Amino acid sequence: MAFETGDPPGQSGRREITGFSNPTVKFLRSLRDKKHRKREGKFLAEGLRLLTDARISGRIPELLVMAAQRDPHPLLAQLEEAVLSCGGQIIDTTADILTKITGKDNAQTVVGMFAEFDTSLGSLDRSRGDIWMAAQALRDPGNLGTMLRTCDAVGAGGLILIDDCADPFSVEAVRASMGAVFTQQIAMAGWDEFSGWLRSEPGQLPGQLPGQLVAASLRDAVDYRGAPYSAPCFILIGNESRGLPAEYEDACDLRVTMPMKGRADSLNAAVAGAVLAYEVLASFD
Amino acid sequence: MAFETGDPPGQSGRREITGFSNPTVKFLRSLRDKKHRKREGKFLAEGLRLLTDARISGRIPELLVMAAQRDPHPLLAQLEEAVLSCGGQIIDTTADILTKITGKDNAQTVVGMFAEFDTSLGSLDRSRGDIWMAAQALRDPGNLGTMLRTCDAVGAGGLILIDDCADPFSVEAVRASMGAVFTQQIAMAGWDEFSGWLRSEPGQLPGQLPGQLVAASLRDAVDYRGAPYSAPCFILIGNESRGLPAEYEDACDLRVTMPMKGRADSLNAAVAGAVLAYEVLASFD
Repeated sequence: MAFETGDPPGQSGRREITGFSNPTVKFLRSLRDKKHRKREGKFLAEGLRLLTDARISGRIPELLVMAAQRDPHPLLAQLEEAVLSCGGQIIDTTADILTKITGKDNAQTVVGMFAEFDTSLGSLDRSRGDIWMAAQALRDPGNLGTMLRTCDAVGAGGLILIDDCADPFSVEAVRASMGAVFTQQIAMAGWDEFSGWLRSEPGQLPGQLPGQLVAASLRDAVDYRGAPYSAPCFILIGNESRGLPAEYEDACDLRVTMPMKGRADSLNAAVAGAVLAYEVLASFD
Repeated sequence: MAFETGDPPGQSGRREITGFSNPTVKFLRSLRDKKHRKREGKFLAEGLRLLTDARISGRIPELLVMAAQRDPHPLLAQLEEAVLSCGGQIIDTTADILTKITGKDNAQTVVGMFAEFDTSLGSLDRSRGDIWMAAQALRDPGNLGTMLRTCDAVGAGGLILIDDCADPFSVEAVRASMGAVFTQQIAMAGWDEFSGWLRSEPGQLPGQLPGQLVAASLRDAVDYRGAPYSAPCFILIGNESRGLPAEYEDACDLRVTMPMKGRADSLNAAVAGAVLAYEVLASFD
């Protein structure tokens, strides 16, 4: 419905918007909802730092919205130049309208709209990292973004989202990723498709697995510390409440466990992934 | 204002509430706001699992609110018995009213109201753990709860919140802690007070520091892996955006750094704390 979502932004160049009911404002605002993001194939990212990470990674927003009251900044000028030279649009508007678009008080003074990336397994370049993270049915966008951020930190190849996960292009996930949504490869796939893909490519060395699948698990597991990790190593983290299905754990090449000294039997999903990823990184050094 | 906050709950025993405008419902609902929590010294925790962790840790809710449509459960019966035998109240109500209290769709079928604990540094038993976590100006309640959960997992003594942090008794922090808010010692203090306390107690062995303060830092730091940690080790994590003030870093006994292979120069605060805590745990084994 046009009333709900507004019309998609139009021509390239620079213009000003001062009205809250402007169709482009409505369109951008609607991208906070997953349904609209998926239909339009667009998403939002906020802040000069994040948008600069995107630019340097070759991701240029199709549209840039900027608050009229802003300090000049050389990175902002570079961003504007990149948007215009790629045929994108720049919109100058008020701080209030920017707040309306992002739904966040004290909104950043610049917001970019991007086309969603290709998230097929086939788009992944497996040679881009020795460590990969995979999350199964991960529900929390903050956890998802944090895992992307950890992927960046350990120099991972990317994050694979298995089964029904939170949306990596949600505002919360993009924020929590601190820009890693632009620097990391991201794919989404069902379990069977992922398994097939993982086992399909030959390893680089004779006898090497095409990819080692490692689960954080309590069953039949070895200590995560000093476990026999091999590259490319895919660290598989399960759903926040239920963990991994037993048959997924069974399909792993290695099951590792971390000490749990207290009452609880699990860590936060993003924390478990990070502790494992840093251990794998140290073992590859 | 009575209209906003409702009146505090009254007498011990069991009763039923069916009206949304009941003063006890308003009172409980108001505890979602920090201002009201602090004034009343009470907070909420949801869910049978979490409330059972609390009970086993000797924390009994002063008031228990239960949805009328619920399945019987032996742990629930034990919880009810504990509340009544400690002179607390049990309120039977509807699922809708429970949702109103917690502000969460699909609310848990049981919610407890607790008196806030003593969070003075003097209340801490430093002998209860070789690892401690300390967070400075931590703003995100989810990060705070996740750090508590990690504290539990590594068998830490507790979490010390330095300067102006998020509230550990907020609904979000309690949820993210997965019960660790009840099992971990928690203290809040300004930096000077914390420094004085840390350096005041003599070490257990001759020449041992009373407490080793370790910062995750980029300045003048050694590799976090295999660094000379000593117990009791206090892991200090800074604010999500600004990190630690330089003078706090300078005051640390050890500054360690984790590999950062990507574009970003930092990890999520709760992730950094966990990676460090598991490294310290391994070094103490």
